[in-house]
Amino acid sequence: MFEITVKMDVLKEIVGVVSTLVEEVKFNAEPEGITIKAVDPAHVAMLVMELKPEAFEKYDAKGLAFAIEVDKLKDLLKLGGGDDTVVMHHDEEKNRLVANLGNLKKEMSLLDLTGMSDPKVPQLNLEAFVVLSVGELGRGIKASESVSEHVALSAEKDQFIISAAGDRDSAELVLGKDELVEINTPESMRSLFSLDYFSSMVKAIGGKGDVKIFLGKEYPMKMVFSIADGNGDVTYLLAPRIEE
Amino acid sequence: MFEITVKMDVLKEIVGVVSTLVEEVKFNAEPEGITIKAVDPAHVAMLVMELKPEAFEKYDAKGLAFAIEVDKLKDLLKLGGGDDTVVMHHDEEKNRLVANLGNLKKEMSLLDLTGMSDPKVPQLNLEAFVVLSVGELGRGIKASESVSEHVALSAEKDQFIISAAGDRDSAELVLGKDELVEINTPESMRSLFSLDYFSSMVKAIGGKGDVKIFLGKEYPMKMVFSIADGNGDVTYLLAPRIEE
Amino acid sequence: MFEITVKMDVLKEIVGVVSTLVEEVKFNAEPEGITIKAVDPAHVAMLVMELKPEAFEKYDAKGLAFAIEVDKLKDLLKLGGGDDTVVMHHDEEKNRLVANLGNLKKEMSLLDLTGMSDPKVPQLNLEAFVVLSVGELGRGIKASESVSEHVALSAEKDQFIISAAGDRDSAELVLGKDELVEINTPESMRSLFSLDYFSSMVKAIGGKGDVKIFLGKEYPMKMVFSIADGNGDVTYLLAPRIEE
Repeated sequence: MFEITVKMDVLKEIVGVVSTLVEEVKFNAEPEGITIKAVDPAHVAMLVMELKPEAFEKYDAKGLAFAIEVDKLKDLLKLGGGDDTVVMHHDEEKNRLVANLGNLKKEMSLLDLTGMSDPKVPQLNLEAFVVLSVGELGRGIKASESVSEHVALSAEKDQFIISAAGDRDSAELVLGKDELVEINTPESMRSLFSLDYFSSMVKAIGGKGDVKIFLGKEYPMKMVFSIADGNGDVTYLLAPRIEE
Repeated sequence: MFEITVKMDVLKEIVGVVSTLVEEVKFNAEPEGITIKAVDPAHVAMLVMELKPEAFEKYDAKGLAFAIEVDKLKDLLKLGGGDDTVVMHHDEEKNRLVANLGNLKKEMSLLDLTGMSDPKVPQLNLEAFVVLSVGELGRGIKASESVSEHVALSAEKDQFIISAAGDRDSAELVLGKDELVEINTPESMRSLFSLDYFSSMVKAIGGKGDVKIFLGKEYPMKMVFSIADGNGDVTYLLAPRIEE
Repeated sequence: MFEITVKMDVLKEIVGVVSTLVEEVKFNAEPEGITIKAVDPAHVAMLVMELKPEAFEKYDAKGLAFAIEVDKLKDLLKLGGGDDTVVMHHDEEKNRLVANLGNLKKEMSLLDLTGMSDPKVPQLNLEAFVVLSVGELGRGIKASESVSEHVALSAEKDQFIISAAGDRDSAELVLGKDELVEINTPESMRSLFSLDYFSSMVKAIGGKGDVKIFLGKEYPMKMVFSIADGNGDVTYLLAPRIEE
C-alpha cells in the first residue's frame, strides 16, 4: 500500500540529497513516514533521511519497501514546476511506481530488492557541535577548492575553522561566535575530510537554512539538517581522512 | 533580381525551421514570395515553407533560385538584435548574397545549384487532425525522452495522446477536448515517430502559438504552423516508424 | 614591503587583462605604483600596465617584485563580490602572497623570479589613431569571426574600417566620423592582425569605455585604455600578419 501526493519542491529536495551518495535508492514506507538509509559505493559516507507524513500533501503507506534508480526521479522533476504536485502510487501487479502530474502519467520500473539491505548506522560519540548557515560553509569550501582535495574542520572555544593546506598554498576561514548560530566544544576538535564529498553534501542542503555539524578528533563527522519545511530530517555521516 | 529587407526576428524563425532538417538550403524567390522545399539527408522528414512578400519589410524578387549554407545565415543572426533589420540582395556578378546591417556588410558565397532540385511533395490522405498549443507538445516530448527513442501520437474521439513505451517504463500525456484548440477524428488514429525528429520540429515552432497536426494509421504525419506574424506557412512531413 | 587593499572589481579588471597574454605574471611594486610588463609565449603581443596608488583603497609598497600564477588570482576572485575588498600583503619569511577577505585568509606561493626579466617595450612610430567605443570593436570582431582568422584594421580620412576576407566570404564594418569619438589619419593606414589575439584583447577591456588604437602600414598596432576608474593604464601591442 503506497499512495502519496508530494510537492515537486519537496521531491526535488529529497532527490537532491539522495543523489549525492547513490544512484539507486531504497524507500521504506510505513504509516509513520518514509525512511531512507544509504551508503555510497566507496563506503566513505552514509545518509539517513526521515520524512514524516506531514512532508507530503497526502500520505497513505504501510509496509512497503521499494528501490528505484535515482535518475528516474530526476527525470520526473523536469516535468513540472516547484509548486506542482505529483501523485505517486505503487502498482503491485506490474511492480512499478506510477506518477501522475495532472494529465501526464509516468510508470517507472522498480529494482529487485534482493541484497539491498539497509546499512547499519554506527553509534558515534560526538560531543562537540556547531550550528551555522550553509552560506558560510559554502565560502569555506570555495576557498579550499583550489588549494587541496581535503578540508579540515576544527572546533575550538568560540571558533569554527574550515581550512585547507596544499603543498605550498593554504586557505582558512575562521568563524567566530558572532558568525555562528551556536557552538559547543568541551575541548578542541579537528578532523580532515574529502573536500569532494563534503562539498556535494553541502550543495545538497540548498542555499537556505542552518546546518548542525558534530565533530570529533580524527573521527567521523555528522551533519544534520532539515528538509521539507521541517517535516524531514537528514543526517550525513562522513568518514575522516588521515592527516599526513 | 533579389532585394529584400527583413527583420532579424523573422530571419531567425526561418533559419530555425530550416536548420532542423538541412545544412544547405535552396530559396526560390518569385514576385509572389519565397518558397523553400527540403528533405533531410535520411529522407525521413520533409519541409515546405512559403513566405509572402508581407513577411518582409521590403520585398523585390523575381525568378531567382539560390542555395546557401544554413550556418552562414546563423552567423548573420548573431550580428544584431531581433528588432534590427537586414537588407539582403543578390550580387549577380560575384554570385554572392550580400547582407547589410546598418554600417556592417557581409558577403556570403552561394552554392552551386546543380543537382539541387526541389523535392516532390507527396499527396497525403489525412482525415484526422488536432490543433493544440506548442507548450503541450513540449510537455509530452519531455516526458517521453527518458523512456524511449520513439513517440506515439494517437487521436481518438475527443482525446489526443502523446505516449512512449520503453522496455519497462512508460510515459503518457492525455489531452482532452478542454486542453485542445480543436480536434477532428472520424476514427481512431495512431502512428509511431522518431522522438528526435519530432522534438526538433516542435522546438523550431517556438514557444508561442498553435500547431495543427494531421494524423493517420501507421502513416506519415503532417504538422502545419505559421511564422512571420502569419505571413509565412510551414508544413513538416514526418515518416512513421513501424511498431514492433 | 607590500601591503595593499584592493576592490575585487579592480582586481578583476587587472586579472582579466593579464590573463589574455600570460599564465604567470610579474608585479613590480614601487611607491609610485605597480607596473606589469608581459609578452605572450609566442611573442606576438605585449602588455604594459601601470597602476597608480589611487587604484587601490590602501597602498603601501616599495622595491618589491614578485611573480604568481594568474590562476591563483582568478581563484581569489571567486571568493567575493565586486564591492568586497581584499587586503594583500607579502609574507617575506615564507615568500607568499597573503590575501584576507574578511574572515577568510588565503596564502599563495610565489614563483621564482630567476629568468623572469621584464620585456623591453619597443618604440613605435605610429601617427594615425582612432578613439572609439569597445562595443563597436566587438561588432566588427563578431562579423569577422565566421569569415577568417585574420582581421584588417584600416584608418582613412574620417573612416575606420574593420574587415575580414575569407576565400569566398567577406565582412566589413565601416565606422564614420559620427560613430567614432576621434580620428586622426595623416594618410591611409592598414594592417592585418590575428583575430584571436585581437578578440581576446578587446574582451579584456570590458563593455564600458573607449579605447584608443594607433595604426600604421603593415606595422604593429597599439591599443590603449584605462582601468581602475582611470587610475590605471593598459597598453597592448600586437604584431601584424603579412597580407598574402
